[in-house]
This record gives sequence, C-alpha cells and structure tokens, in this order.
Amino acid sequence: MLRLLKPSKRVGLPPGTLVPSREVAAEEITITVIDYDEGHVQEKQVQTVEECFPFRDQPTVTWINVNGIHDVDIMEKLGGHFGLHSLVLEDIMHIGQRPKVEEFENYLFIIIRMLRFDEENDQVIAEQVSLVLGEGFVISFQEREGDVFEPVRQRIREAKGRIRSKGSDHLAYALMDTIVDNYFIILEKLGQRIEEIEETLVGDPTPESLQVIHGLRTEMVFLRQSVWPLREVISSLERGESTLVHQTTQVFLRDLYDHTIQVIETTESFREMIAAMRDTYLSSISNRMNEVMKVLTIIATIFIPLTFIAGIYGMNFSYMPELHWRWGYFLALSAMAVVAAVMRFYFRRKKWL
Amino acid sequence: MLRLLKPSKRVGLPPGTLVPSREVAAEEITITVIDYDEGHVQEKQVQTVEECFPFRDQPTVTWINVNGIHDVDIMEKLGGHFGLHSLVLEDIMHIGQRPKVEEFENYLFIIIRMLRFDEENDQVIAEQVSLVLGEGFVISFQEREGDVFEPVRQRIREAKGRIRSKGSDHLAYALMDTIVDNYFIILEKLGQRIEEIEETLVGDPTPESLQVIHGLRTEMVFLRQSVWPLREVISSLERGESTLVHQTTQVFLRDLYDHTIQVIETTESFREMIAAMRDTYLSSISNRMNEVMKVLTIIATIFIPLTFIAGIYGMNFSYMPELHWRWGYFLALSAMAVVAAVMRFYFRRKKWL
Amino acid sequence: MLRLLKPSKRVGLPPGTLVPSREVAAEEITITVIDYDEGHVQEKQVQTVEECFPFRDQPTVTWINVNGIHDVDIMEKLGGHFGLHSLVLEDIMHIGQRPKVEEFENYLFIIIRMLRFDEENDQVIAEQVSLVLGEGFVISFQEREGDVFEPVRQRIREAKGRIRSKGSDHLAYALMDTIVDNYFIILEKLGQRIEEIEETLVGDPTPESLQVIHGLRTEMVFLRQSVWPLREVISSLERGESTLVHQTTQVFLRDLYDHTIQVIETTESFREMIAAMRDTYLSSISNRMNEVMKVLTIIATIFIPLTFIAGIYGMNFSYMPELHWRWGYFLALSAMAVVAAVMRFYFRRKKWL
Amino acid sequence: MLRLLKPSKRVGLPPGTLVPSREVAAEEITITVIDYDEGHVQEKQVQTVEECFPFRDQPTVTWINVNGIHDVDIMEKLGGHFGLHSLVLEDIMHIGQRPKVEEFENYLFIIIRMLRFDEENDQVIAEQVSLVLGEGFVISFQEREGDVFEPVRQRIREAKGRIRSKGSDHLAYALMDTIVDNYFIILEKLGQRIEEIEETLVGDPTPESLQVIHGLRTEMVFLRQSVWPLREVISSLERGESTLVHQTTQVFLRDLYDHTIQVIETTESFREMIAAMRDTYLSSISNRMNEVMKVLTIIATIFIPLTFIAGIYGMNFSYMPELHWRWGYFLALSAMAVVAAVMRFYFRRKKWL
Amino acid sequence: MLRLLKPSKRVGLPPGTLVPSREVAAEEITITVIDYDEGHVQEKQVQTVEECFPFRDQPTVTWINVNGIHDVDIMEKLGGHFGLHSLVLEDIMHIGQRPKVEEFENYLFIIIRMLRFDEENDQVIAEQVSLVLGEGFVISFQEREGDVFEPVRQRIREAKGRIRSKGSDHLAYALMDTIVDNYFIILEKLGQRIEEIEETLVGDPTPESLQVIHGLRTEMVFLRQSVWPLREVISSLERGESTLVHQTTQVFLRDLYDHTIQVIETTESFREMIAAMRDTYLSSISNRMNEVMKVLTIIATIFIPLTFIAGIYGMNFSYMPELHWRWGYFLALSAMAVVAAVMRFYFRRKKWL
Repeated sequence: MLRLLKPSKRVGLPPGTLVPSREVAAEEITITVIDYDEGHVQEKQVQTVEECFPFRDQPTVTWINVNGIHDVDIMEKLGGHFGLHSLVLEDIMHIGQRPKVEEFENYLFIIIRMLRFDEENDQVIAEQVSLVLGEGFVISFQEREGDVFEPVRQRIREAKGRIRSKGSDHLAYALMDTIVDNYFIILEKLGQRIEEIEETLVGDPTPESLQVIHGLRTEMVFLRQSVWPLREVISSLERGESTLVHQTTQVFLRDLYDHTIQVIETTESFREMIAAMRDTYLSSISNRMNEVMKVLTIIATIFIPLTFIAGIYGMNFSYMPELHWRWGYFLALSAMAVVAAVMRFYFRRKKWL
Repeated sequence: MLRLLKPSKRVGLPPGTLVPSREVAAEEITITVIDYDEGHVQEKQVQTVEECFPFRDQPTVTWINVNGIHDVDIMEKLGGHFGLHSLVLEDIMHIGQRPKVEEFENYLFIIIRMLRFDEENDQVIAEQVSLVLGEGFVISFQEREGDVFEPVRQRIREAKGRIRSKGSDHLAYALMDTIVDNYFIILEKLGQRIEEIEETLVGDPTPESLQVIHGLRTEMVFLRQSVWPLREVISSLERGESTLVHQTTQVFLRDLYDHTIQVIETTESFREMIAAMRDTYLSSISNRMNEVMKVLTIIATIFIPLTFIAGIYGMNFSYMPELHWRWGYFLALSAMAVVAAVMRFYFRRKKWL
Repeated sequence: MLRLLKPSKRVGLPPGTLVPSREVAAEEITITVIDYDEGHVQEKQVQTVEECFPFRDQPTVTWINVNGIHDVDIMEKLGGHFGLHSLVLEDIMHIGQRPKVEEFENYLFIIIRMLRFDEENDQVIAEQVSLVLGEGFVISFQEREGDVFEPVRQRIREAKGRIRSKGSDHLAYALMDTIVDNYFIILEKLGQRIEEIEETLVGDPTPESLQVIHGLRTEMVFLRQSVWPLREVISSLERGESTLVHQTTQVFLRDLYDHTIQVIETTESFREMIAAMRDTYLSSISNRMNEVMKVLTIIATIFIPLTFIAGIYGMNFSYMPELHWRWGYFLALSAMAVVAAVMRFYFRRKKWL
Repeated sequence: MLRLLKPSKRVGLPPGTLVPSREVAAEEITITVIDYDEGHVQEKQVQTVEECFPFRDQPTVTWINVNGIHDVDIMEKLGGHFGLHSLVLEDIMHIGQRPKVEEFENYLFIIIRMLRFDEENDQVIAEQVSLVLGEGFVISFQEREGDVFEPVRQRIREAKGRIRSKGSDHLAYALMDTIVDNYFIILEKLGQRIEEIEETLVGDPTPESLQVIHGLRTEMVFLRQSVWPLREVISSLERGESTLVHQTTQVFLRDLYDHTIQVIETTESFREMIAAMRDTYLSSISNRMNEVMKVLTIIATIFIPLTFIAGIYGMNFSYMPELHWRWGYFLALSAMAVVAAVMRFYFRRKKWL
Repeated sequence: MLRLLKPSKRVGLPPGTLVPSREVAAEEITITVIDYDEGHVQEKQVQTVEECFPFRDQPTVTWINVNGIHDVDIMEKLGGHFGLHSLVLEDIMHIGQRPKVEEFENYLFIIIRMLRFDEENDQVIAEQVSLVLGEGFVISFQEREGDVFEPVRQRIREAKGRIRSKGSDHLAYALMDTIVDNYFIILEKLGQRIEEIEETLVGDPTPESLQVIHGLRTEMVFLRQSVWPLREVISSLERGESTLVHQTTQVFLRDLYDHTIQVIETTESFREMIAAMRDTYLSSISNRMNEVMKVLTIIATIFIPLTFIAGIYGMNFSYMPELHWRWGYFLALSAMAVVAAVMRFYFRRKKWL
C-alpha cells in the first residue's frame, strides 16, 4: 500500500525531463473543462488539449481537470500554453511527491494527496492531485479516473453556496476542502476498525489481532506523511503571501487549516490508541500464559507428591511392614487425600485458585 | 467517550452550510438573557430569539446563553443580527471542534471544551461551548442544558466581586475561568482514582486493574486534546491583540493562563504516573509468575529424584540384593530423606526458599 | 507527597477572593522585619502587621518575612499598604502554584518552591515561597515556620559578603540563591539513595527495590515540576526587563541561572539513571528466572528418562527375559548411569551447566 | 560499515595541517577536466595538476574532478592556485566529515556524502565528495575511482537538457542532484530488503532475522547521519545567500530540497517499519514460546493424573480389593479414559486446543 | 566516575566566597608562563604568582597555566591583578560547572571539560579547565597536573603552524581545539569497547555483558553532558559577538564547531548502538530461554506418555490379559517406540527439532 519512493527510473536524466511514471501509464487520459461565472456554467469534455486553451482568456473561472498524467505530449502542450516550469511538469508526472505549495510568478503550484475510501473493495485509494492556480483558472491533475470532487461540480452546476460568485482561488480552496473532508471519512473508518479490534482484544486475542494492529500502525505512518506537510501548505496559503489568494478566501483557508490540525490530532490520538491496543494485546497474551502456567503448576505439584507415595508402596522390598497392615491401602489413600487437601489449601491462600 | 471526529455527514456540502450535528439535535432550545450594569440586573428566559435583540443596543452588558445548537433557523437569525460569519455558525453547530480563538472585525469567536463531573453517574460530561464576545455582549452556545456557569450567574445577581462593574470581556473571562476551574475538579477525581488503583496494585493486581489503567490512559489523551489548544487560546487573548479585551482584563487572563499551564502540567504528571503504574502492574504480574515457577520447580525437583528411587526398587528383577536386606526399605526411605534434605539445602543457598 | 492540585474549594468564587488554603490554616502567623543598610541592622518580630509599615518609607532595605499565609485580614492589610493586586494575594494564599515571576507597576511578584531536607524525619519538605520585590523592600511569604534562609540572616547581621551594601534586588537574589543551593542538597541525598539501591540491585534484587525505584521516579517528576519553570523565572529576571533589578545584580542572576540549569541537568541524569536501574532490576529478575528454569529443566530431563527405564522393569509381564538375567539389575542401573552421563555431557556442551 | 570517527592521528597537529587519511592513501590519483559552454565541450585527463590551471581563466565552465585525495602536494598546488583556505584542504583530505556548506570570499565549499549501490558485491559504498564552487569552475574531490556522475558527463557531452547553457552553479546542482537521486536507489534496495524480511517474519522467524533487523537499524542510523545535515546544506544554498548561486538555479535547488525532505521522510518511515518488524519478531517468538508451553502443559496435565492412577494400582499392599475384581483392570483403564476426556473438555473450554 | 553535583559545602556562604573544592585541595599548585610573539618564546615556571604579572603589559601573547585551583590566596591575587569578577573565581574553584562562556568587559571566561584517556589505568580522566581570554593573555586553570596541551606547547616552542603569528584568541582556540580532538580519542576507545562487546554478544552473552552495557550507557550520559553545552559555547564564540575574537579566528572556530557537532552526532549514534546492543542481549537471552524450554518440553512430552504405558503394566491387577501374552512385553516396548516416533514426527512438523 505504501508508495513512498520516487521512481528510480528517472535517475540520471536531466531534471525537468518528462518521463511518465510507470504505474500510471496504462489508462486513457480524459480532460474536462468547467467554465463558470455567476450567470452561466459550461461543462465539456474536450478531445484535444488545445480545445481548452480559449477558456483561459475569458473573464470567467475555468476549471480544467486532467485525469491521467502519463502523456508527455499533452503535458508539454498544457505546460507551454499556461507557462508552467518544467520542474512543475516533472513533479506532476512523478507521483509520490510530498504535499507542497510553490509560488511562481503567475501561478501557485499545489501538490496534495487525495485519499478516498473505496466501499466496494474496502480499501483506501491514494492518489496524487496537483493543482495549478492561476488568475481565472485552476488546472487539476489526477492519476486516474474517479475522485472526490463530485460535490464541488454539483455545487457549481446548481449554483449552491457562494462558489459561483467567487474567483479561482475559492475553487482551489473548495477542491482542497473536499479532499480534507474525505480524510475525516478515512479517519472514521479507521476509528471503527480500531473499535472493532479493541473488542476482539478484550474477548479473544489472537496473533491475527496483532497483525491487524501492525497493519493499522503502518497505515498511520502513511496517513501522517500525507497530512503533516499539508499543514504547512495550507498555513502558507492562509498567510496570504500570494496575490492570487484574495482576503475573502483567507478566512475559509483558516477554517481549512483548523480541519487539517484536527485531522493531525486525530491521527496522533489514533497512534496512541494503537500503541495502547498493542500493550493490551501483549498483556492479555501474557495473562493467558500465566494462567496456563498456573494450571500446569497446580496439576503437577498436586500429583507429583501423590505419585511419589504410590511409588513408595510399589517397591518390592521383602520387609515393608505397612504393606501387610489390614488398612494399609486405605491409610495410603487417606495420606494422599490429606496431601492433596493441604496443597489445595496452600494454593487458595496464595490466591492461585 | 471520545468524540474526536467531525461528523462526516457534512462532506460535500459547501462550507458554511448549517446542518445540525446529529447527536445534539434532540433536545429543546432555551435562550436566557442576563443584562446588567453596576446598578441593575435583569434576567429573563426568552421565547423567541428576536426578544434578545433589543438588549444589544443598550450600554449594559448582555449575556445571551443558548442551550441547544441544532436549530438552523435560530442560528441564522442570531447570526444575521449579530453579524456572525457563516463559518462561525458552522463551527458552533458542528461539535467536536478543537478549542480556538478567532478574531473578526466586530467580535471574537472562542471555542472551548467544558468538562463537568456528573456526580450521579460518576462520569465526565464533555460539551463544546462557543463564546462570541462583542462590544457590550457575550453570546454563549452550549450543546444542552446543564453547565458550570451557575456561580457566575450568582455573582452577577448578588453583585459579588468586581464582575458587575466590568465589561463584556470580563464576563467572557469569568466564563472561561469557571470552565478551567472545573478542570481542576476533574483532575482531582482522576487523581483519586489513580491513588485508588495504586493501592490495589500493591495489594492484589488483577487483569481488571490493567484495563482501568488503559482506560485512564485514553482519558488522558482526551483531556490533553482539550487542554493543550486552550493554552494558545488564552495566551493569544492575553497578548491583547484585540481591542475588545481591555488592559485590566489582561492581568486576569494571565492568571487564567497560569491555571491552564498548571492543568497541563498536572495532566503530564498523571500521564507519567499512569505509565509508572502500568510498569508496576506488569512487574508485579511477572513477580507472581516467578513465584509460581519457583514453587513448581521446587516441588518437581524435590520429588522427581525421590520418585526415581522408588521406581528403582519397584523393578521386578529376580536378583536385586537390596530388596532382601532386613533394613532395605528403611535404608531406601532414609536415602530419600537425605536427597530431599540436600535439595532443600541447595535451594536455601540459592535463596529460593 | 505530591501536591499538584490547586484546592478545588475556590471553584465558583470570584477570582481574587481571599480564602485560606485548608491545609495551612492551622499554625500561628509570625512576622519578622529585618531592616538594614551599610551602617546598621535592626531585627524585630512584630505583633501587628501595622508595625512594619513605617519601615517602608525609610531609605534602608527592609525584609518582611511572613510565616503563615492563612490570615485573610493580615493579607489584606499588607496588600493594601504595599499596593498588591488581589490576584497576587490570592496566589500567595493558594499554595501549589507553579514557580513564576510577574511584573507589576511598582513591584515584582515571584513564586518559587523551597525544598529542604528534614534530617530528623528523613524526608523532603516542600513549601511555596512568595516574594514581593519593591523599591527598598522585600516581603517573603512562607507556609509555615522553618526555612532555609538562616544563612542569609546571619550574613546580614554580621555584614558578611556584599549584601549589606546592596539593594533589595540583591536581597531577593540572595533568598532565591539559598533556595537553589538547597536543591543541590536534595539532589545529593537522592544521588546517595540511587547509589545505595544500585548496590542492592547488583547483590540481591527484591520486589521492594522496584518499589523504591518507582518512588524515586515519582519524586523526580515532582522535582522536575519545581525546577523547570524556575529556569524561565530566573532567565526573565536576568534579562533585566524590570527596572527593579539593577545591572550589578544581573551578573549574580546569570550565575544563579547556571546553577538552575545544573540542577535541571542533574535531574535529567538522575531520570536516565533511574530508568537504567529499572532495566537492571528487570534483567536481573529475568536472569534469576532463567536460572530457576534451567535447574528445573536439568533435573527433569535427567530423571524423566531414568524413571522411565525403572518403569519398564517395573512392569509385570510374565515373559520379560531381562528380569531373569543374572546381572539384569546391574545392567539396568548402568544403563541409567550412561543416560545420565550423556545428558550431563549434552548440557555441558550447551553451556547450561 | 560505519565510519563515524575523524581519524585520531591528526590530534596534536596544528589545524590546517595536511595529512592524508590513512585508509584512502593507497590508490593513484587521477584528475579529469571537462570544459564546456553552449558551443563546445572539451574533456581531458591531465597528467599534472598544473595542466588544469589555464582553464580557469576562460569564460567557459570548467569541471575539475579529482579522484584520490591523499596527495598533499597536489592538494597544496590546487589550493594555492584556486585560493582555498588551509582548513578547506584539511576537510577534503580527512574523510568522515559531516555534510556542510561553507561560504568563503570567492567560492563555496560543499561536503556531501555519495552513496552508491555496488551491484556486484551487494553492498553500499559511501564516499565523501567535496565540491568547490567558484565563478566559472567546479572542483570535485572523491576518495577513489568510481562515482555516480556518469549521467551528468553524458548530458554535458551530448548537450542534453539545459546544462550546457548554464553556469557553474547549475553544474554543482546537477552533481548534488545525481547524488540525491542515488539515495532513492539505496532506499529502494533497503525497501526491498525490508519487504523480504517482513515475509520471512510472518512465515518462519529465526534469530537470524533479528540480526538482519538490527543490521538494518544500524544502517538507518548511518543513512540518517548522511541525509539530515544535507537538508541544511541545500536549504542554505537555496536561500540564495551567496552571489555564486543565481536565481534561475534556486528553483532547481528548491526541487532538490524537496527530494532531500522526501529521502528524510522515507528514512523515518523505514525506521518506524523496522521498529514495527522488531516488535513483530518478538511477538511471534513469544507466540511460539506460548505454543510450546501449551503443548507441554497439555501433555503433562493429561498424563500426570493417569500415571498417578497407574501408580496406585502398582502398589503392593496385601489387601487391595480392587486388584482382585474381575473387571478391576478394565475399570482402571476406563477411569483413566474418563480423566483424559474431562481434561480434554476443560482445555477445549479454555480454548487451549 | 560521575561528578555531577556542585559541592554542597558552599551552601549558605555569600555568593562569590572562595572556598576550595574538597577533592582537589591536596596537590601542590604550579604556575607556568609561556610568553611569545613571532620572534621569540619564553617559557618559565614561576614560584610566586606575582612573577607573572609583568608579562601582561608586554605586547606579546602570554599564556599563564595554573595547575591546582585550591589556593584561595593565589586566586585572589590573580583575580585582583587581572580584574576577574568574584563569581568567576568561585566558578574556577568549584569544579563540576557545566561548560559555558561568559563575556565580561575586558575578558571572556570559558569553562570546558577536558577528557583524556589514561592509558596506564585504562580509564577516562575528566577535569574542569577554565580559560580567561583577555587582550594579549590567556589564563588556563586546571584541577591538577597532567593535561592534553603538550602539542600546543610544542607548536609554540617550534613555531609550527601559524600559532606564533596570531593573538591570544587563537591561543584560546588552539587549547579548545586540542581538548575537542581528545574527545575523538575517547570516542574511538568507546567505539572499540562497543565493538568488543558486540562480538561477545553474538558468541556468548553473559549477565556481565549487560552490566558493561549499562556502564557504557552511564558514560554516554556523562559524555553528553560534557559535549552538548560545548556546542553553544563555541557557537557563541564563533558568532563573533566579542571584540576579543578576531575575524581570522572565526573561520577556525567554525571548523571547531563542526568537530563539536561531529562529537555530538557520534555520541548520539553510540547511544543508539548501545540501545540496540541491549535489545540484542535481551533477545539472545530470551532465545536461550526458549531453547531450554523447548528441550524440557520435548524430553517431558516424549517420556511422560511412555512412563504412563510402563505404569499401566506395572499395575498389580489379578486379571490383566496382556501380561500373560507371549509377546506382551515386546508389544508394549513397540507401542512405546511408536508413541516416541509419532511425537518426534509431530515436533519435526512443528519445526521444534
């Protein structure tokens, strides 16, 4: 699940060379344009990348969404038209970047990790989303089809909320906000799983529980890596260093910043809870072990002396007076009973029984 | 007990949309107004939200307390009249926010977590309290009926202390101070519980003790999450960046800040003590285990050789001279006694007995 | 021993209300005045608080020491005459504050924790000392009789060192310096105890050792809480932000600051050493356990096969040829000896013996 | 593998004395010059160090690469001609320095650790690379033959990318970028090894696995030491404090900085994963132990009572009625079967079977 | 070995009182003067402290080295002539100070910890060295005879390096540099010891190994305490805040700073390696334990059922058909062999054999 490494294939190539990431090269590329202002909306899936160039010069807000990032040709055309630095294009195409924001002369370049929960396969899908925020346009690059942006599109189409009356910076904010909102869903799923395991731990801990705990731990590492840098990203946007982010958007970014902090804190709490679960697991395993040992000790210490007594009267000495007593056998049995009773009393006092 | 997550229902809605939090939507809303200056006090439970609007324009200090935050309509009316930002209203209605202070043009928005100890059910009740501090008014929003503010109301009614002669900033301070004072009660209860468990740990540690310890550990995580951000909140208020907070109130906020630090430090100490208790528990469990093992070893190692001797003379060889000795049996018993004595001496020297 | 909590009795009262702390309310209050300059010294135990007021207006340095802080009346008179803020008086009377320095217009308010070793009862006594440093006077408040200031008094009486020729800031420094010097004594005692336990750990670790170690650990938590904030206190005094602290005193405060850092570092070293001791204890316990297990294993694995051989020839089959051999018995014994020798050799090779 | 220590041989010599590091003194020194601008490239292996001096005064970019750093004579000549400080020369010759950048009047001095994976021997080779970046020239010093710079050379020769049209600062960047790119390869190899071990851990953990884990842990310490200071190095270059680094290069350095952060984060993730693996190993070992103990306990507790019953009827008392019952033997066997069944039921209920 | 505590004897004395540290009071004091400039050197052991006063007024650099710091009289004379603050003298005489630098009007006061390895007794000797750096002179105070400065003296005598042509600040640097160089020797020795123990750990871990590891851990604590504050000392000197440190010396201090960082990083690596060794030790002990347990279990579980079978046929029932079968005995033996074989197969499959 972890994709922490930058693909090594690039090594040795001049920086800024566009080489598609291997893993994402398969799917087809689709480009969608949504162009809107307070009065109108236009939504269109373009066939060639050139079709979306004219939207740029209109005073409306244009959102170009690119699904699939492996086509060097399309990238270069887009990059050329919108004046993107070659390193920006390289970062877009090489997934596994850490979230960051970079300011260029005419645009802001934002990388963010989109996590969404795939209900069907019960797994988290992580994707790198790159946003280019310019005056009047936002370009978003995704690794493949399928995203969490549908509610934003819906809001634009239906003119819900204030999004239609705001600029491209608000659109970029809305996209990031939706991504962060989805983190809460992931956290909720994780929280449910943590609760489930906690219950099995109390009832019947198995080595499998530990593996699940270790799995959760690794996922927390991944989640942390996605969220921590996001904090800096949003904080630096909020501080309003760029003229592309207007003051009215800053109060929204502050709100988004709070949500990010909340995600981070929840992640940290989960980490602590997972650590606590591990401790609980190990303690309950060791409690079981103790119980097993106690049973062994009790059985062994009760029967070993009894067996010894039986052994004595199993000896074949010619002269053993007890053997010939009338009640010798029953005396021996009684002696055994007494020994067993004493042992039992001793264990009771020691609170082992 | 932990409510760390922002409700996910909101996901996809435009930011600033007012949707009541599910959990709090049940109870009825009550609004109380206390209006006072040095000369007079007026206390009144209003039926409609509009009733409290006129108080705003009077030079007196007005405290509007809203119990219940799920009525979108009331929220919008209040927000409209007092000029609250839609994101503020959203934060008020979505409980589970982290404590924070935000400065707006005409008011300060403060979120704080109110913890109170419910003696009846022996549990801690956590509630989000949102304060809006404006010139001449404070609006406080609570999730439900029941709070820790009664002493403040009493002081206003009876004109005790300096509260009646001070402005709305002092009222906000007084509310926060009461909340922080209640943290000390919670800490005292927790301290008592820690002491109780410590005693059982010395006497008779059970797996249940460990569960209580883990429970305390989780509560500490929750408490920490409530208190840590509070520090920043009060510190930023104290630094006097807002004109709404007068200089005479700042010395009180500094005092409140000290109390917050004290709460934090006590929390940290408790964490260390809980960790130490865990260690004590595990050590005493392992001590017990050792004792059990020692008993097993002693019994087994004493009787195993004896049983072996008995076994030898239980063999049925035709020619075993000892069997026919006059004192053979008693010699065998004596040999066993000697072996047992040697073993005992050995264990004594090893300090196992 | 830990007094971490602010008494909860105050909850609900307006801030600045003077309520004596319960625990300290018993003893009688004594007030002593020492008034000096380069030429003269006057020492006097006053009956009423008013007696010490005239000293204030003289150009000499006046040290008013108040033992016992539970008399609201005396506090209010002193506070009134010297212009102390009601929150300052509250802090003085509510022990368990964390060390801090606060600057007011005409005076500095310092809270510090005085630790002294009570040789008789072999325990550490912790007391809150509050200092009010004004132009020409120092007021010190202690919880009860008995302090570490005797050497300072002696120096004033005998005009030793430079104290008589310096102002009230130097007196405050001298008091704090004496308190910090006493921390070193406490540390030395703790160091001795750590060494003692270390020795018992090597020789004969008992579960009691672990309890002592846990006790030390808790004391370190307490000590840390007393010393860490002190660092900020002295550092902020040294930075000379107040006009009440003259430049000549700052070099002494820098020295005191170094001592505080040394106390902190020693505390941290002790923490590490205590952690190491805990590890040593647990390892030596587990070593013992191993030894016990080894003895059990050796005895059991040697005798179990032997007993099995004896068991075989104890069977009552009609046709068992060995039983009727002339040397059958001795062959069986020899077989047992051989098995035992092989086992012994095996254990030797495994280095278990 | 770790070479953490500065060679102690130097101790006592005046700082700046040139003494070759012992370990690297064996190989022969080779000096290569690559001189290029947009129009031409010249590559040449020089015989004497003086041959590369004339390149300095040309307006082209000159890259002097020195393999082997043990010849004091060559160092002094180079240092003399290019005006290098004696401490710089000392740092170049004493390998084991930590990565750093130092600004001098006419040049920047950069130390960086080059890691490359030797496929043949399946090991990581670490080498100290020192770069001197001046106006129009870069001098690189390596410990021995063999480096990761071949792709850069190729790019210069074939005029790929923008390297030929840029200054010496871009060359220095390109060299550092290639080094950092190779860190990713090392990380990938480590990642593969971690995955391999993780698989063996689930299947069949052996004490050897633990040794491999400990080995990885030590390598992480080494890697961390190489990469952490690099962050400061590149960050300080990027901040553009030196006039030698042009603004166009800064955006590339920012990219390089991001890569360095990524290397650091991956290293930290690996550390956490290695720690998790250690936990998994210890848990699975302890699980095995539990299983072993359970088998012992089950076998022992089932057979000990049975053997006791057999022992009873092996006694030789004259009067033991059961012995003469017709079905005595079979009753005894049945009793044993019942005991065994009860035990088995008990273990089932306890979930031990 | 640890001398962390400030001697408590001083408590109660006015600050700045000169009382010799108890431990160092025994040896005789020797004072040596080395006076030099580019042209000449004069070295002389003075009898009285007054003899070294005239050197001060000459334009040459004067290095006064004082071995032994317990003579209050000499201290006061030196302090008087060179204008040293009484607190400086106190710090010089009270060993166990933490490394620091303090700036006074005419001089810098530096405390540093000199560690040197005593080859004869195979131990580290720690000594406090105090340096007073003034215009044209350096006074160094050592606790006793024997130091690491011989190479510096040699360099001055033989005019090696640049030391003779530089000022007193360079001399102070040279002394500190030599001290830090000796840290590397200590680290190398520690590194060797760590390697040695690592080897014994793989081969044959004994409880003694653990004690050595704990010893190393304590030494690391001590080393850390010596080195960490040194970093600030040199960093603050390097930042060139004092006019006594010339710019040409700053580049050397930067180099020294790098060495200090390297010492710190090596110390941290050692700490990690020691922690790893402890883990390895505990794991290998627990591996042994497992092995022991496995042997016990195998022996016990194989023989317990066999002994049970033997026990059955040792019973004395009148009617036991098997006993009278012709091949009964051999059938019983065969049954035992089968049971043993099955057990063996089971253990093989479980990979316990």
